[in-house]
Amino acid sequence: MNSYSEGKIQAFQKQNDNRARFLIKCPDQPGIVAAVSKFLYEHNANIVASDQFTMNPEGGEFFIRIEFECPDLKGQMGKLETTFLPIAEKFNMEWKIMYVRDIKNMAIFVSNEPHCLLELLWEWQSGDLMANIALVISNHETAREMVESLGIPFYYIPANKEIRHQVEEKQKQLLEQYEVDLIVLARYMQILTPDFVGHYENRIINIHHSFLPAFIGAKPYERAYQRGVKMIGATSHYVTNDLDEGPIIEQNIGRVDHRDNGDDMKKIGQSIERSVLARAVKWHLEDRILVYKNKTIVF
Amino acid sequence: MNSYSEGKIQAFQKQNDNRARFLIKCPDQPGIVAAVSKFLYEHNANIVASDQFTMNPEGGEFFIRIEFECPDLKGQMGKLETTFLPIAEKFNMEWKIMYVRDIKNMAIFVSNEPHCLLELLWEWQSGDLMANIALVISNHETAREMVESLGIPFYYIPANKEIRHQVEEKQKQLLEQYEVDLIVLARYMQILTPDFVGHYENRIINIHHSFLPAFIGAKPYERAYQRGVKMIGATSHYVTNDLDEGPIIEQNIGRVDHRDNGDDMKKIGQSIERSVLARAVKWHLEDRILVYKNKTIVF
Amino acid sequence: MNSYSEGKIQAFQKQNDNRARFLIKCPDQPGIVAAVSKFLYEHNANIVASDQFTMNPEGGEFFIRIEFECPDLKGQMGKLETTFLPIAEKFNMEWKIMYVRDIKNMAIFVSNEPHCLLELLWEWQSGDLMANIALVISNHETAREMVESLGIPFYYIPANKEIRHQVEEKQKQLLEQYEVDLIVLARYMQILTPDFVGHYENRIINIHHSFLPAFIGAKPYERAYQRGVKMIGATSHYVTNDLDEGPIIEQNIGRVDHRDNGDDMKKIGQSIERSVLARAVKWHLEDRILVYKNKTIVF
Amino acid sequence: MNSYSEGKIQAFQKQNDNRARFLIKCPDQPGIVAAVSKFLYEHNANIVASDQFTMNPEGGEFFIRIEFECPDLKGQMGKLETTFLPIAEKFNMEWKIMYVRDIKNMAIFVSNEPHCLLELLWEWQSGDLMANIALVISNHETAREMVESLGIPFYYIPANKEIRHQVEEKQKQLLEQYEVDLIVLARYMQILTPDFVGHYENRIINIHHSFLPAFIGAKPYERAYQRGVKMIGATSHYVTNDLDEGPIIEQNIGRVDHRDNGDDMKKIGQSIERSVLARAVKWHLEDRILVYKNKTIVF
Repeated sequence: MNSYSEGKIQAFQKQNDNRARFLIKCPDQPGIVAAVSKFLYEHNANIVASDQFTMNPEGGEFFIRIEFECPDLKGQMGKLETTFLPIAEKFNMEWKIMYVRDIKNMAIFVSNEPHCLLELLWEWQSGDLMANIALVISNHETAREMVESLGIPFYYIPANKEIRHQVEEKQKQLLEQYEVDLIVLARYMQILTPDFVGHYENRIINIHHSFLPAFIGAKPYERAYQRGVKMIGATSHYVTNDLDEGPIIEQNIGRVDHRDNGDDMKKIGQSIERSVLARAVKWHLEDRILVYKNKTIVF
Repeated sequence: MNSYSEGKIQAFQKQNDNRARFLIKCPDQPGIVAAVSKFLYEHNANIVASDQFTMNPEGGEFFIRIEFECPDLKGQMGKLETTFLPIAEKFNMEWKIMYVRDIKNMAIFVSNEPHCLLELLWEWQSGDLMANIALVISNHETAREMVESLGIPFYYIPANKEIRHQVEEKQKQLLEQYEVDLIVLARYMQILTPDFVGHYENRIINIHHSFLPAFIGAKPYERAYQRGVKMIGATSHYVTNDLDEGPIIEQNIGRVDHRDNGDDMKKIGQSIERSVLARAVKWHLEDRILVYKNKTIVF
Repeated sequence: MNSYSEGKIQAFQKQNDNRARFLIKCPDQPGIVAAVSKFLYEHNANIVASDQFTMNPEGGEFFIRIEFECPDLKGQMGKLETTFLPIAEKFNMEWKIMYVRDIKNMAIFVSNEPHCLLELLWEWQSGDLMANIALVISNHETAREMVESLGIPFYYIPANKEIRHQVEEKQKQLLEQYEVDLIVLARYMQILTPDFVGHYENRIINIHHSFLPAFIGAKPYERAYQRGVKMIGATSHYVTNDLDEGPIIEQNIGRVDHRDNGDDMKKIGQSIERSVLARAVKWHLEDRILVYKNKTIVF
Repeated sequence: MNSYSEGKIQAFQKQNDNRARFLIKCPDQPGIVAAVSKFLYEHNANIVASDQFTMNPEGGEFFIRIEFECPDLKGQMGKLETTFLPIAEKFNMEWKIMYVRDIKNMAIFVSNEPHCLLELLWEWQSGDLMANIALVISNHETAREMVESLGIPFYYIPANKEIRHQVEEKQKQLLEQYEVDLIVLARYMQILTPDFVGHYENRIINIHHSFLPAFIGAKPYERAYQRGVKMIGATSHYVTNDLDEGPIIEQNIGRVDHRDNGDDMKKIGQSIERSVLARAVKWHLEDRILVYKNKTIVF
């Protein structure tokens, strides 16, 4: 990590020493909010922000994200989690508490088009992407200079269909070595094996250069041009084993017209890809995304 | 009310017989959510949706909107409100419980451009604007036919600067007679007196045909054309005694270019006005808007 | 036609008595603009607006739309077209001159959801849709009252798969009787036979309630909800015999989130459908659309 | 210029060796297009794209931009311009022919917020901003490293109100030395003197961080937050001596809500600033902008 970003991260950690995020999903039933808020109150925590959503009100699923401040959070952590156990059991909750000062370790995978990588690096440098970019892995050398100039380790691992398993072995070693929490496919263009994907469930974010489910698969800009669409888009989603079918986190679109050929569409689209991916990654880093079946709840 | 809309309203009321919205603002402090959610739980209410916001976390202001279902709500209403009083006092709350089945009475004021009125009537007919449109008041006869054809009373009250007070007297009588909760200025184009405005604080919604604070006052499209802007907008806000300075509820904009003259801008703008006003009115009817100083919190 | 709209149309015709639109497509080659503009100049015509586009500059296709004013246009019409013939032949042009005062006859087909029909009627009443709405044909009685109240003939023709050919026979008779130039499917929801479509090539405009090519076919809002998209859209296109595959004229989208269920998406989408269809119809009426293979050039 | 960009520029020049852009404004009158297109045809030029606009059709002003290909353009240049003179005189034209291979020299002025500078450098590196970035001038050292690392000269010239004239003297010397055609104020935050502005009429592009004419002057994000707007914007315009009142080239906006404080607005806004400025600069470099009084025609 270069000293500039390190300073921003330390300042952020200091400022958020006592802040945490509570994420819960469980079957809907009366008393959940009462129980959780009473629990927080009894631990002297102050709720700073809270978002709640019930899918299919009757007999449905309940989701909540609570951001709270708690004096001496570090000292209380263990106690907090233990004391919450009986509540979690009573309501049959899936839950976690994320401590804001625990900055996530992020790996970026990139191929030879660097625009999405650049956007992430930029946001990171300006302190808007609160992560530790632990390493960048690429099957091209294109991005080495810009990555290393920021003090981020860069690994060149040539990849193709035939050597997929060996490639993933090397990648997994690196991901473990750097204790990576989140993998961002910033236009990586290689398909991952089910084994790899399963290992990082809901922790691999991809950017697809179309407005899904339109133009699933290869060459979406070319196909958009052939179809004569008037808008093109980009989609950020968690990776599953169904190509381009994972839970969608964010989408956006831009206008094109008959003057725009395939190359123009690509240029217009790249700017959309950049912002869509950056937003999705930020939301993940801020623990704003809950996944339910094949959908995301973004708080 | 025509029979078509009446049917939709009755169905809506039946469906929401046990549903209410809790709106609270108070100084931020620990324990608010715990107290309110415990209170609701003890009355067998189930929280369906909840939005919370704290302005300036340290020593700031706390806002919450809770939508809940409560069995036999009608029978419980009095008890609910009485039981809540000590909690409200303890936390120094401004609060109200709005019963969803209590449809608001709405008056629409319009001048001789009917596009915003038409949008509201349309949304109302299609069941998307859950209000009782009690009457329409206009200083022109233009809209009489379309209003009366829907079974809504139409009152023609000529208006100008000189007779402002007499005009408002007549209007106030009508508003009282129809027990009006909300006044929508759907391009009414007359300035209201402080007395009138004071009587309906945060209950008069206006649509201004510019992206405020640009082009405050008269002829915004003409001035936008003169200035050569590349986008024009519309702003919906609560009316205060400072012209076009009240709390903004919603804004939107659309693209224009050098080909668009003042008339084109007006046409493009009218479609923006329509949707911006309709959204603002819906949010008010759904009790989604809290006003704090000169701003709105829209949940 | 009701007297209100009739007045607007007559005023428009008077104002545009000497105005015409020249539409040309031909293989690209030097000298086209020179020849056409010389031709217009020699007939005392003044070019008011001109849009040009060459697809694939080298060896490609050339498209131009010229709007011009010509004194005593009515008297000159025959001569204009005859004199142009040798130029058209030389450059191997497909061409037509559209006289702005010749208002097009339009038929609207609608099923039981009237929102798109309503938008068109509204734009028409306000003078923004310069067409003669000759008739409305529906397989439901829903829209009869609103249509007839505007003085527009309404024909109820029940329709389903089994009686498709008989239904289309009746429809064709009406379309001929009213000398219809353009058919707008304002959510008609019935598939037309190749024979019918072939008869009105590039003269049938449909609105599909998705961002094509996503969600081709039935129930797009429901499928959009199931897929968990973050935006929904609408697409207006000329009808061909490939379902939802015709040349796209216009598209737009709107944001949705996890709070929006299928019904919410439908409501949000309907407002997009309305504006997308209205724009497409206006562009057609203004002779702004040139079709080339499966794409549109919209000037 | 670093070798990477140099390569892209040379490829572009080679590809556009025979391409030029014709920009004309004159009083509207019949025969302009005929005369110009005949002239081009006689010089064996093929019109590739053409945009025309008449402001106030009757007795108004005529604008045209024609992009054409002409064999052996370099050899023909002098002859082309001489031969056109009588036509230009006859129609009282302001005109110029821009040769696409003549890449413009651009200076970027920046203060201590580098986001707009970074966007321009990025677009430039990826070959989407076809200019020679001759130098960067700043009153801070912040950007030195990133600028010099790309092989672009960086000049640190401290600036403030008191020493404005000396500062501008130094700047003018540098601008002359580097033969600068276009100055981009990428958040420079210093007011320029009328003398300086007059020297570079319609050749200084500024980015203002609000949706002008809202929030003219200092601290627009803070004032937007105070006013409680629901959208914030950015405006790119040519600099004149009236602060933030020059001809607008491009604008865009983004949504904010009550959760966004002044800092959030700044972050959201910076991303809008970046793209708005980049578009404006590109349009200028592509000779797409004609200025008429206080407005721009962007073809």
